[in-house]
Amino acid sequence: MVATSANEQLKKVVIIGVGLIGGSFALALKKNSAAIHLVGLERSAASLERALVLGIIDEASTDIASALQGADLVVISAPVAQTEVILSAIYPHLEAHTIVTDTGSTKADVEVSARKALQDKIGQFVPAHPIAGRESNGPDAAIASLYQAKKLVITALPENAQSAIDLVATTWQRCGAVPHYLTPSQHDHVFAAVSHLPHLLAYALVDQITEQPQAELRFQYAASGFRDFTRIAGSSPEMWRDISLANRAALLDELTHYQAQLQRVANALKQSDGAELLAIFSNAQAARRRWIQAIESAEQPPKEGGD
Amino acid sequence: MVATSANEQLKKVVIIGVGLIGGSFALALKKNSAAIHLVGLERSAASLERALVLGIIDEASTDIASALQGADLVVISAPVAQTEVILSAIYPHLEAHTIVTDTGSTKADVEVSARKALQDKIGQFVPAHPIAGRESNGPDAAIASLYQAKKLVITALPENAQSAIDLVATTWQRCGAVPHYLTPSQHDHVFAAVSHLPHLLAYALVDQITEQPQAELRFQYAASGFRDFTRIAGSSPEMWRDISLANRAALLDELTHYQAQLQRVANALKQSDGAELLAIFSNAQAARRRWIQAIESAEQPPKEGGD
Repeated sequence: MVATSANEQLKKVVIIGVGLIGGSFALALKKNSAAIHLVGLERSAASLERALVLGIIDEASTDIASALQGADLVVISAPVAQTEVILSAIYPHLEAHTIVTDTGSTKADVEVSARKALQDKIGQFVPAHPIAGRESNGPDAAIASLYQAKKLVITALPENAQSAIDLVATTWQRCGAVPHYLTPSQHDHVFAAVSHLPHLLAYALVDQITEQPQAELRFQYAASGFRDFTRIAGSSPEMWRDISLANRAALLDELTHYQAQLQRVANALKQSDGAELLAIFSNAQAARRRWIQAIESAEQPPKEGGD
Repeated sequence: MVATSANEQLKKVVIIGVGLIGGSFALALKKNSAAIHLVGLERSAASLERALVLGIIDEASTDIASALQGADLVVISAPVAQTEVILSAIYPHLEAHTIVTDTGSTKADVEVSARKALQDKIGQFVPAHPIAGRESNGPDAAIASLYQAKKLVITALPENAQSAIDLVATTWQRCGAVPHYLTPSQHDHVFAAVSHLPHLLAYALVDQITEQPQAELRFQYAASGFRDFTRIAGSSPEMWRDISLANRAALLDELTHYQAQLQRVANALKQSDGAELLAIFSNAQAARRRWIQAIESAEQPPKEGGD
């Protein structure tokens, strides 16, 4: 399935940000293609040194000009909010044959940032989002198997050449990932609905309980249902603040729908409308069952860790 | 810790409803006190026969008058909505020394039902709620270990003699449970906050996704965060309709607070107020971490299964 032709020219890859996401990409690529020269670029000298020691990268660099010289592919795996600054720094050194991609959890805002920063070179940037993660972070958390059978969502731009899209897709396939294609808006609404909104709801519930009278009593009786429902409220607050702001428009759409949905539930409760409650609960239970069965029949269990 | 005096008189126990909850209680009690005669009473002849075959009960009965003759303790483990009908049927046959308790997930409504049905005999009824469950139901799901180290919440009435409360507490201790004491209102608000409201929120989210455009696309990208968040939306819709209606007042209180909390999150998003989002997320993450640590240090992991 892997189109080798697109990868034959892949000799030098630059990874900006060698933490969990970039480090795991490097380890997986190295395992599959030992000949590729991997250059790591980082703000944190400690992370860079650690990535070198762990064998994640072949070369540590703090100079963007020399790192980009002769690079075939640049993968940005830094926080989404830094994308524009990084792309602006890349712009003057970007050679005509180099393709740039990212790993950001939101895509409409990344496109806006990329257009500002790359201007006439925007066609060289192929936005992407690998759907994988772990509870831990940093180079030490990186593992070669992180992307095995996981989805890579590419939100290609109209300016992208097919060969540029294919280069990103096949490189990630070498890391074990399965390429999927969405528009930026589809991507952002889909993930707002099934990931970002649930995070907001879980954080909001736990925060609410801490502010109520007898909070300790409430926590004392919380059991496994609560534990699973709120697991995602254990995620990094800084990361989820950034994702929430980056995906603000789509997330507000989903949240507004959800507020209307909760009002429907509240009305049913107020009117003791058991039939309406049963309709909502039954539909949800059936849909969730179908979803679980679809996952199981695809033999791709949902990944562990954050998303 | 078990006061044996209170249990010396325990010779005959009647269990009304021999499914998961009542059956597990019977198995645990039998294991600890083989001499007690256990009588099962059920609407379903098949469940009753099955409970007898499985050795859960010593005697199957469909006649409430003879079942109650000489009974020391009656445990009602039928759906909460049936409590009043069952107590009304018990009333004319209730001997002066017999204590009655229940296992309902809500307590204020049970008290109202009990007062209507038992009138002058209300002091003989000690409301209780064992905090344990499994995904499966019926006599075949019953296990002797279900209540091991689990909480039993007793919401005693002012009319209850201390000896009656102690009888219920010590009998459940024999089954492995740890007695806790709350008022009915405390109980209902606590469980509305940490169990009933999360169920409503999870059902509401899954139901919402099914009604949106591109529902299939959304489910396709749902991962482990979504799976855990919505696990409780896999619970019985009928049971949760009944619990929602039975605990309607407390649940509406919690839901109203939560709607205000979500509006606070929506406003922060609208204003791109990262500091406010970070405050909510950080407080929630820290509170959840403390909760997990408290559970772990108590060496009582949250139970598996429904609650």
